[in-house]
Amino acid sequence: PPAPELKPRAHLTGLDLEKIKCVPGEFPTVHWKYDQILQSKNTMKYENGSLVIPQHGDYFVYAQVTFRNHSTERKNCGPEIKMVTHVTQVILKHQSGYPVPIELLRRSSSIIKTQNWNHAIYLGAIASLQKNDKLLVNVSSDGLLYNRAQVNFFGAFLI
Amino acid sequence: PPAPELKPRAHLTGLDLEKIKCVPGEFPTVHWKYDQILQSKNTMKYENGSLVIPQHGDYFVYAQVTFRNHSTERKNCGPEIKMVTHVTQVILKHQSGYPVPIELLRRSSSIIKTQNWNHAIYLGAIASLQKNDKLLVNVSSDGLLYNRAQVNFFGAFLI
Amino acid sequence: PPAPELKPRAHLTGLDLEKIKCVPGEFPTVHWKYDQILQSKNTMKYENGSLVIPQHGDYFVYAQVTFRNHSTERKNCGPEIKMVTHVTQVILKHQSGYPVPIELLRRSSSIIKTQNWNHAIYLGAIASLQKNDKLLVNVSSDGLLYNRAQVNFFGAFLI
Ligand SMILES: [Mg+2]
Repeated sequence: PPAPELKPRAHLTGLDLEKIKCVPGEFPTVHWKYDQILQSKNTMKYENGSLVIPQHGDYFVYAQVTFRNHSTERKNCGPEIKMVTHVTQVILKHQSGYPVPIELLRRSSSIIKTQNWNHAIYLGAIASLQKNDKLLVNVSSDGLLYNRAQVNFFGAFLI
Repeated sequence: PPAPELKPRAHLTGLDLEKIKCVPGEFPTVHWKYDQILQSKNTMKYENGSLVIPQHGDYFVYAQVTFRNHSTERKNCGPEIKMVTHVTQVILKHQSGYPVPIELLRRSSSIIKTQNWNHAIYLGAIASLQKNDKLLVNVSSDGLLYNRAQVNFFGAFLI
Repeated sequence: PPAPELKPRAHLTGLDLEKIKCVPGEFPTVHWKYDQILQSKNTMKYENGSLVIPQHGDYFVYAQVTFRNHSTERKNCGPEIKMVTHVTQVILKHQSGYPVPIELLRRSSSIIKTQNWNHAIYLGAIASLQKNDKLLVNVSSDGLLYNRAQVNFFGAFLI
């Protein structure tokens, strides 16, 4: 069959919790372990939590992270877990040469403080991006992330 | 670089709450302030709450609105706020020449009546559209909309 | 106007609850009644709960199912309804020649056990698929599905 047109695309999965860095007063950036598309096609690069945009254009960008109450003693960069009443996911773009990223999409949810809660946050929308912009996902409460396969993912494709 | 193929696309943000009109017995239509793509590319027009489809085809259409409990004395077209137990978002298409729009996608959520709740509703799917069809977003409870940047958006692109 | 390029795409709606089969220990597969695109364009086939992939490539795949507490005496394949504290949606791919499907995307939510709850689960992301792979949607609690138009849908398009 003829080679399909390879527009840039990526789909990352698997939280890499050990790589999350705490920066006081900021939501930490999620890191990812697995790249479901790029190995073979190499259309978009993953670097240190970010997808690097290979060509300017309008992309559909999406991400889901899942939070739950759990008892791990993992470090947590956000506010003290027992005080958490909301969880938040933000998709940002960090433009080449700019000091800080800007928010593209944000979503928060109130937590149901029942015994065994579980809560996913999904976002997806178009973003206009330039070559070398970086896309990243920040979360409010990394200590509550649920690191199970298929419940956390982050991707983009040129539309 | 060569001009990218400009398939129709749009991404609107920023609720324009003052423009919302009450029609008894109907969910009010959300209005939007900012057009993140059209200014420069002008592929899809925004008119009075609606995206106007420039050519027939199958589009991916998405929207997120965010509700929260708050104490503004803003008018509200829906049922009395203190009686609200669910919030709803509907994406509709209004075909040229038809009296009323038809529902494409709908989502409702029960509200958690805790002290400070926050709830987003996201929808995204394919819709088959004709030239001059209008896409719009209706909500159950405009008095509960949370008008913060990046938490409300509405867009579409030809697939 | 020139015929649009017909990349594979599908958008299914309408739960066909009577067709759901119980398999002990497994989440049942949702069946669908209406095909919003294929009739005229015939780019992707629906067979027995599954979308059949007509050509290899990367697809954007999405689905929403809606659960609610209700009093129907419909059979239910999952755990006893009164014990349910979470609802789950999974999108899977069943590769031709493999005995079981593999999970692509998963999302669970805690139920708010108030008197009249209503809860939708949405997923959408890229999946790399081969010709004759089948896409399907499984749910944890078919006895809680809310069979109203526009609140349940399942689709995909080649990106
Ligand atoms: Mg969602």
